[in-house]
This record gives sequence, structure tokens and C-alpha cells, in this order.
Amino acid sequence: MSTIDPVADPAADAAVRGDDRSHVFHSWSAQALIDPLPVAGGAGATFWDYAGNSYLDFSSQLVNLNLGHQHPDLVAAIQEQAGRLATIQPSMANDTRGELARRISEIAPDGFSKVFFTNGGADANENAVRMARLVTGKRKVLAMYRSYHGNTSTAITLTGDPRRWANEPADASVVHFFGPYAYRSPFHAASPEQETERALAHLEQTIILEGASTIGAIIIESVVGTNGVLIPPPGYLPGVRELCDRYGIVYIADEVMVGFGRLGTWWGFENFDVVPDLITFAKGVNSGYVPLGGVVISDRIAAHFDTVSFPGGLTYSGHPLACAPGIATFEVFRRDGILERVRDLGERVVRPRLEQMAARHPSVGEVRGLGLFWAIELVRDRQSREPLVPFNAAGADAAPMAAFAAACKKAGLWPFTHFNRVHVAPPLIVSEDDLVRGLDIIDRALEVTDAEVAS
Amino acid sequence: MSTIDPVADPAADAAVRGDDRSHVFHSWSAQALIDPLPVAGGAGATFWDYAGNSYLDFSSQLVNLNLGHQHPDLVAAIQEQAGRLATIQPSMANDTRGELARRISEIAPDGFSKVFFTNGGADANENAVRMARLVTGKRKVLAMYRSYHGNTSTAITLTGDPRRWANEPADASVVHFFGPYAYRSPFHAASPEQETERALAHLEQTIILEGASTIGAIIIESVVGTNGVLIPPPGYLPGVRELCDRYGIVYIADEVMVGFGRLGTWWGFENFDVVPDLITFAKGVNSGYVPLGGVVISDRIAAHFDTVSFPGGLTYSGHPLACAPGIATFEVFRRDGILERVRDLGERVVRPRLEQMAARHPSVGEVRGLGLFWAIELVRDRQSREPLVPFNAAGADAAPMAAFAAACKKAGLWPFTHFNRVHVAPPLIVSEDDLVRGLDIIDRALEVTDAEVAS
Repeated sequence: MSTIDPVADPAADAAVRGDDRSHVFHSWSAQALIDPLPVAGGAGATFWDYAGNSYLDFSSQLVNLNLGHQHPDLVAAIQEQAGRLATIQPSMANDTRGELARRISEIAPDGFSKVFFTNGGADANENAVRMARLVTGKRKVLAMYRSYHGNTSTAITLTGDPRRWANEPADASVVHFFGPYAYRSPFHAASPEQETERALAHLEQTIILEGASTIGAIIIESVVGTNGVLIPPPGYLPGVRELCDRYGIVYIADEVMVGFGRLGTWWGFENFDVVPDLITFAKGVNSGYVPLGGVVISDRIAAHFDTVSFPGGLTYSGHPLACAPGIATFEVFRRDGILERVRDLGERVVRPRLEQMAARHPSVGEVRGLGLFWAIELVRDRQSREPLVPFNAAGADAAPMAAFAAACKKAGLWPFTHFNRVHVAPPLIVSEDDLVRGLDIIDRALEVTDAEVAS
Repeated sequence: MSTIDPVADPAADAAVRGDDRSHVFHSWSAQALIDPLPVAGGAGATFWDYAGNSYLDFSSQLVNLNLGHQHPDLVAAIQEQAGRLATIQPSMANDTRGELARRISEIAPDGFSKVFFTNGGADANENAVRMARLVTGKRKVLAMYRSYHGNTSTAITLTGDPRRWANEPADASVVHFFGPYAYRSPFHAASPEQETERALAHLEQTIILEGASTIGAIIIESVVGTNGVLIPPPGYLPGVRELCDRYGIVYIADEVMVGFGRLGTWWGFENFDVVPDLITFAKGVNSGYVPLGGVVISDRIAAHFDTVSFPGGLTYSGHPLACAPGIATFEVFRRDGILERVRDLGERVVRPRLEQMAARHPSVGEVRGLGLFWAIELVRDRQSREPLVPFNAAGADAAPMAAFAAACKKAGLWPFTHFNRVHVAPPLIVSEDDLVRGLDIIDRALEVTDAEVAS
């Protein structure tokens, strides 16, 4: 395991920066307008650069490293599997692949025996939609505004945020609807109960007007991730389940960000008294140490493909090297009581502290979350709830958020910010001391955003 | 490095088989109708099961393991990187990521400086198409019948083989055209020169009738892979280049299967006197030991995204653990003269031997290939060229090919068969003795298919 040892190394910094700027084309960016930080190493909840700075990681690298940087058990599992059998084609049976599939089915609800492995979350969602379309014989898919489901054609069309825009039209058979968002209710609801009731009525109207006979699937992040840590109000997801049953629609739970412990449960949907038909995952399954995603398939849907060929597949499906740290993840979760500690830290440490910040800082409109997944929603005015920066703000419009992030980084914290929100998503192995230290830094940095509030 | 040591272990065989059949959902299959072989290990050009059988691998596990099973240099690179920094998010700069991008740009044609990394070939093609569409402002993409480009929505629509069928309609802006295939000319051509001339006339007619003003890209496997090892006749790809220039179309070379040495050159297109605008790769870049793909981008296209944000990305883009064995691949290729040996073995050993088989076996209609990538096309009648089994044959219709494959496996060779063809695609590190031994096995097994020939 690497140790936390940030040493200034200007030559290495320059070399890494040089190769990067000359040769690496970056995701979601205007290439000449970015300045990627050269990262030298990481351990646990911390990573460091070549300039002598270390950062407490409150983003988990895109909410990916659930077990933190360089977890020794995951590293050992990769090294062992690499020495034994790095890969074998998907048509073969393999011990590591089979064991991880079994482990995943063991934590899935009853009646979910089989796992189709993919390379990540996008192709997990693509293949779940493929299954739903073929099983129902219906092609249209409903997805939420304010959602993210991946970057390939159908996945980016499912996405309900601006990353979709430049890619349209891609998959013509996707329709977006509004999900619940009590703080900014699209339904003018006055309570969570009313939000649930009206959101379900809206969804049912959408189903009826789009035509139930045309809709094969509804896909929902069990807790909306990048687009706001939106916790569904009580009864909403069970209501979706009921609508799916009534109208013959497959319910796909996108668990790419919240699956594998982020909310203190194996799956996000466990918190909301619901069982979907297909579960997609990636990231936390092996903390992203090797690219891996997949679909957990209910037996009813799997049975459809017993004698009908499934028309999807990929060279790296069930990649042994990727599955090995997945198995190790189960061991670590059990041995170290990860789920229990996430629930404990979330309720005992994070929730009260964020509520305190909400009381103290005029720029905080709302705090919400579960486990180790929280959002602080920043506003210019608590009364009107005007966001601190506009939706999809960039450049000068986003300056207050950039200033907040800079203050955090200067104090040694790497934050996750999106639009007018700060998300709190540290690795699940973060120590209580580091968790409190990170919250302290955010608390102080909120003075930057407080200064933007109209007084 | 594992040694070739197949030992019968019925208990392990049963355990692996049990987990697989209960929990693993397999690619491109009717799940109840398959019987995946439990693989215990591999080394070099060989892998083995739990029943005491070893197989000389003439498929390279879906034409993926260019450096064979468990290459010690690649294994060491993975183990070292795992211990140092398994992963970091794509917005950071990273030494391993930057070095591999630089190495790839060094073997690319002049004017290809940047690499966008993906998880595999499908999302490489998806992102290449995304770039082409945005740079040209034109959405339609032309792709070949008899092609494979991946399993996500746009990639499977680009695909010109039956794997596309059950997934349609997916991307509405894809049109298929006929590529050259001299042995079964769609253009009734009598010579390779005429095939080129007519194939280009057909492509230009397609461009004109679809509307050049609507077409953003043409995507072509530099040598068509799974659909036939179709070597483009002289002048064809330069002609495509010329049409792309004339009509303002981006030329995407899909090098997922032939890139990184399969034809004895870094890139397949090097054999055909042409330079595309975008190059997609996966598989051979690191022999698939860790999922990795990407797009090599011409500077003209990259420059478009200097100030305009690129609307694509993924959590695992430029994954350090995946890039490390990519760097090692370059070292091995240079040190061991892989490209030279592939060209030598292809021309000195494979070509004459396959031509001998073509002369000797009445079921062989044609042999064709380059480097260590060859096809033997099997027919019922050399005169009519009727394929040994029908296009897309399954079940009883495919029995002669199944019997051929069974004969190979019984003799210790794992073949690659597709429709009425046998492909020869061993790891590029196969020893000359093993190569000859494998060809001997195929030679003998062709007696099975000879028996199908009408006499």
C-alpha cells in the first residue's frame, strides 16, 4: 500500500503535464481550456500531486472508489489474478467470473440469479434496455430529467442532463419525464407526500399519453447521483413499481453510483421498499480498480433468453482481472462492517453537521442525503431558492462555485461540485477524523458562497 | 508465468461449471443451449481446462490476446501499476495514461497527436462517430455490410452482420453499403482491379443518393475481421480516402481487431497506402489483459475541440491499470521484433501452407490473409462457390462447421470458426513449431468438411 507521502517533484510534474497536454484527449472538456492536475499517488481517502500537496478526496474520483485509493486487499486480488489468468474470452467458464456473479446474486433480492457483466455503467444500461425491449417487445424507454446514465448512444439519450444535448438525436425511442424533487417541486407540491402523489400522477399521465403499449422500460437512478443526490420521497419508487406492473413495463434500477454501499446498503433501492426487474451496476463493485459493470437480471427476464439468443455481448464480458477485486470487495465489506459504518457515519456525523451548516450559512438552501452521499444545495436567496449559479453554468457564471472549490482545495480537500451544489461523497473507508476534517473545510469554504447572498 | 500444466481436477471443474451455469449470463447466446468450457489456465499460445486437456489457441480469445496468455511482461506491468496507483479519474493527468497516449501517437501517422481512451472497441467507435458528427455537423454514417463494430447502440447499428438485427432500429442515421469481396463479388467483377473500381463507384453512388451534405463519416475495418478477413483490393481504401476528401466526410478506420500487429504492422491501414482521419483501437493495445480501447485523433479534428467542449466521456477513460500493460506491449513488440516475425511467419509459413490446403482439399474455396490473420473459406462446390453452410447458419444447418471444430478440439487446437469460414488468428508470439502443428491439425480436420463436398 502506498503511504501518504507528497513530495515536491517539479521535473516529474512537468513531464506528466507535458505528455498529458500533448497527447491525452479528456472527457467532457474543451481541450485547450483545462489544466489537469498531475496526480502522483493515493492511499485511503487521500491523494497527492507532484507539488507537495495532498487532498482529502470527498469525490471518491467520480463517486467510484468506494474502498478508497490503493486498498491493499483489492490491490492484492488484482496482483494475484494477473499472475494466474488475466483474461479469458466470455464464452468460457471461469472461476473468478462465476464466483463474483454468485456473490452478486447472493446480495440481490430473491429471484435474481444471473449477472451479465459489461465494461462499465454505460454499457450496463445499454444492455439492460436491450433486455427490456426484447422481453416486452416494446421499444420506448422512459427516463428522468436530471439523470445521468452513461455516454454511449442509448445511455446518453437516457441521460436527462446537458451532456445529452450535443449528442441528439441518438436513440429515437427515449422520452423524458419529471421525477420528484421536493426542494424545487416540478409539481408545486407542498409536502413530500404530495410530491410522491403528484410525481406518480405525472408519470402515469406520461405513460398513458406516450402509450403503454409502446413502452418497454422505465430507468431510474435509485438516488439521482450527479444531478443532485435526489432522495425519492416515501412511496415514490413503490408507486413506480406498481405502474410498471400495471402497464407491463420493465423497471430498471440504475445503481451505478449508489450500489455497493454508498447509502449504507448493498443497493440503493433497499432504502425505498422496492424491487426492480433489472439492476445495473459499475464503479463500487470493485471501486473502479479495473473497468467493470453489469446487469443483475430477474429470473423472469433471464428465462426469456434461455432459448432465445441474447443479441448483445463484448470481448471483455466477465473479465477475470476485473472480477477479482470485486470478490475482494465483498470480503472487505463483510470483515470491516462497511455498510454499518456508512450508516453510522452518515446519521451520527454527516447529517447533524450538514444541518448545522444549513442553519449557519445563508447560502445553503437545503442539505439532503443518506449514508455517505449528500448534497448541499447553494442559493442566492433562501426565500426564492434562486440557485447560486444558473443551471449548467460555465465560465464567469460559475465563478462562485469555482471560488468555493478553490477554497476547499487550498485547505486540502478535493470537493465534488456540480452546478449549484456541493456533494459529499468520500470513500466509505474514510476515517471519522478525516470525515470531520473535511466537513470543517467545507463549513469554512461556505463563507465564500455566503458572500454571494443578497443581504 | 503459468506453465502448461493441465491436470484433471473434476471437483474444480464441477464447481466452476456450477457457478457459471447458475449465475453467469453469456454474450450472444441462448443461455440454456450453451455449455461453456471451464478454463483453468493459459500460457503463451496455449490454454487448458480442468479435464486434463490443453488447447493451442488459434483464436487468440476473440482475436484479442496478441501477446498470448499470461505474457510475463504484461503481467508484471499490471502488478506494478496495481501496487502504485490502480486508477484515477479522467480529469486528472497521470504518468501512465500520458505515456501510453504518447507511445500510441508515436506509431500513428504524422498529425495524430491525441488519444481519447475508452473501455473497449464499441465505445471507441461510438466516440469516433460522435467526433465526426460534431466536426462535420453531419449526422449520417456509412458502414459496410459484413462488418462488426461493437454492441452499444450506435456501434451495433454500424455493424453489418446479423448481430444487428434484433437491436434495430437503434441509431437511425446509419446506412450500409457493400464493400469489396472479390471471391463473392457484389459487383460481378472479374478481377481485383475491377472489384476496386466497381466498389468505389457503388460507394460514390451511395454517397450521392444518400446526400453528401448529410454524411459525417464512413467507418471501415481496415481488414474486415470476424466477417471474413476480407483484404481490400489494391486502391480501394485510397479511393475511399479520395471520396471522403471530395465530399467532406470523416474516414474512421476501425482497427480494433487488426491494430497492434495482427497484420505485421502497427496499423492495418499501413498495408493499403492510406491514412484515415480517426483510428479506433482496443484488444491488441494491451492484449485485453485490462479492458481498454480508444480513438487516435487527427490534429485537424482534435483542434475542433480545443475551445468547443467534447460531449463524451467515461469514468474509466485513460485507466492507469489498463494503460500500464499497453506501455509494456510497446516494449515487447520492439524487443522481440513482433511485427517482423508476424510478417515473416505469415508469408513464409502460413501462406504457402494454406495455399497447399486449398489445392488439396475440395472443400476449400479460397484462402486469404496477411500476417497472422487468415481465412479459409469453405464451400460445397468450388465451381458454384456455394458456402459449406448457409449465411448465419445455426443448429443442424451449421453441423459441418461444428464437426470441423470438434475435430480440431479433439486434436488439441481451439479454432475460430464463423459461418462457413475458419480463421487462423493465433497469438503473435506463437512459436513456429506450434504454428505448424496447428496448421497440421486444420489440414487433417478439413477432411471432415471435404466429406460434405458433392462429388
